[in-house]
Amino acid sequence: MTRTPLAGVACSIARAADVFGDAWTALIMRDVLAGITRFDDLAHDLGISRKVLAARLTRLVGEGVLVRERYQDRPPREHYLATDKGKELYAVLLALMCWGDRWYAGSDGPPAVIHHLGCGQHTTLVPACAHCGEPLTPDNTTQLPGPGGRTDPGTRVLGPLLASRSPRADAPPPSRPATDAG
Amino acid sequence: MTRTPLAGVACSIARAADVFGDAWTALIMRDVLAGITRFDDLAHDLGISRKVLAARLTRLVGEGVLVRERYQDRPPREHYLATDKGKELYAVLLALMCWGDRWYAGSDGPPAVIHHLGCGQHTTLVPACAHCGEPLTPDNTTQLPGPGGRTDPGTRVLGPLLASRSPRADAPPPSRPATDAG
Repeated sequence: MTRTPLAGVACSIARAADVFGDAWTALIMRDVLAGITRFDDLAHDLGISRKVLAARLTRLVGEGVLVRERYQDRPPREHYLATDKGKELYAVLLALMCWGDRWYAGSDGPPAVIHHLGCGQHTTLVPACAHCGEPLTPDNTTQLPGPGGRTDPGTRVLGPLLASRSPRADAPPPSRPATDAG
Repeated sequence: MTRTPLAGVACSIARAADVFGDAWTALIMRDVLAGITRFDDLAHDLGISRKVLAARLTRLVGEGVLVRERYQDRPPREHYLATDKGKELYAVLLALMCWGDRWYAGSDGPPAVIHHLGCGQHTTLVPACAHCGEPLTPDNTTQLPGPGGRTDPGTRVLGPLLASRSPRADAPPPSRPATDAG
């Protein structure tokens, strides 16, 4: 388990991966968001031990990603639903799915197709810029230091690297007033 | 290690998570795409054991996500660069980063900021539909069965669930001729 050290890293990828960076967790969230919400159904679908599944679900409930809710009183039965925080993991799932489709589907083709009810098309994910809508790539973006950045284990080289880039040479941070205009 | 069973699941999320669904792997890819490419720098940045790091790098080279390349002959020195397959994991990293920023940055604010060189703005990721550009969410999308789908461990409940949805009620699959119009 890499959870405790990762949660302390001043990096949102590390913090997110601390909760989500586990293959079974990805599949649990896939299932819950697809409507497979009962413990027994999840266990049957995934073919994992009930102990492993219970540990993952407890963790996801503890992080506020899922809620446990009673759907039947006699006999008592509960299922797991995604919170808003959990629903927002959908972007991570879609990114994983599209990458898997691209590189691992092989001659069989993709196991599933994303259908966008909004426009009526079968679709794929574009990692779009919130400002201009163009796809974001490693080549057309750069990471700059944010207010919560630190140089610690997990960012010992990255922290100074980002700090060496001048944000003010590019543009002011969004929704935050400049504190020391250069 | 959950790698072998997951790689066999007829699900692109499972296959992608089999390669990428490991928190250290996420941070290694973060670093390589940010320009931290040498073994010693990666080990120092992440604060993980050289053995763990070497195992992850070997796996990523084996999967064609990274290539190992000599950058100096005397003394011999090599670094790791992302292939196109590796660069496409950027969407997964950005989705993790934006989710971590949203839910774990706290009062310190985000540790880093994404700067889009294309439009000159600090930005976030929008998981956009490749057809209409609108954000894809669990509520405005549905998954339909694809040609490579199966009902096996990992999709024992999901497979039949997707199969119960009629793709032809919605729209024909993209870039694939209909084989049996209903």
